[in-house]
Amino acid sequence: MFVLGIDPGVSRCGYGGVRSQGRQWQAVCAGVLESDPGLALPVRLAGLRRDLAELFEALRPDVVVVERVLFQVNATTAMATGQASGLALAEAAARGCPVVEYSANEVKLAVAGDGAAGKRAVQRAVADQLRLPAPPRPPDAADALALALCHLASLPLRRALAAQGVAP
Amino acid sequence: MFVLGIDPGVSRCGYGGVRSQGRQWQAVCAGVLESDPGLALPVRLAGLRRDLAELFEALRPDVVVVERVLFQVNATTAMATGQASGLALAEAAARGCPVVEYSANEVKLAVAGDGAAGKRAVQRAVADQLRLPAPPRPPDAADALALALCHLASLPLRRALAAQGVAP
Repeated sequence: MFVLGIDPGVSRCGYGGVRSQGRQWQAVCAGVLESDPGLALPVRLAGLRRDLAELFEALRPDVVVVERVLFQVNATTAMATGQASGLALAEAAARGCPVVEYSANEVKLAVAGDGAAGKRAVQRAVADQLRLPAPPRPPDAADALALALCHLASLPLRRALAAQGVAP
Repeated sequence: MFVLGIDPGVSRCGYGGVRSQGRQWQAVCAGVLESDPGLALPVRLAGLRRDLAELFEALRPDVVVVERVLFQVNATTAMATGQASGLALAEAAARGCPVVEYSANEVKLAVAGDGAAGKRAVQRAVADQLRLPAPPRPPDAADALALALCHLASLPLRRALAAQGVAP
């Protein structure tokens, strides 16, 4: 199974792909889609939409995992992040690709064992689980890999619940 | 000039088109794009994206006017509205169509003369300015027409500022 994590953002949108074979997880790709802060917001969003479409077309993930955007201290940033997440969710669904959302706390709990883990702890956990020599850079790419790992870690529980007819 | 207003939302996304010829303004269309609340959010967003693309393709507006989404009391609703607005902004910009955003208060001030005007006062003002026998229904469609009227009302000021080299 190939899981693609998306850490949504207009300025920097992280992506990270992890392939699972049995209990082996392997990082396939990680990077950041960026937009020019000098452009108007609609133009930046259109560029992000095009970049996401090209990414999904090139990678053809089995599942796309997008961070669920919650309200943050900075209202303007949160709204732009929400707009970016909307583009990612719509692009995946339009391709018929399953999409799952997890909150940042769910990701931290699943990957670092602590829902309040700091950024560095999550990045080290990502590097450990994917047997990488160093935490992936930039941080947005590491966060996207963490999203993919969170989904892979939750699959046994999801399958057990589904077998009992319970939606996760 | 044909101006298309978009009142973004996932459950109900209002649209309203106004054509201006000199100082004459005429309502061309008004309606609501709806999505099935029983479907998953990504599928609903993909459906809205498709509906918006079809609407822009059919109407070919000169300008798209989208309500600027600000933080509201209901955080979940505001985020979904932000996601819907992101789709509208990206779709318009991807077509090379100019996009403008106004806040709800700016629309109320421009259309009803009072930035704190109630929904009904705005709807009556929309009906008056477009010489409609009754306020347009449903309210989302009236709000979208108000967005288009707000832009048309602001054009003389925008042009005057542009002539002085000042960005509005």
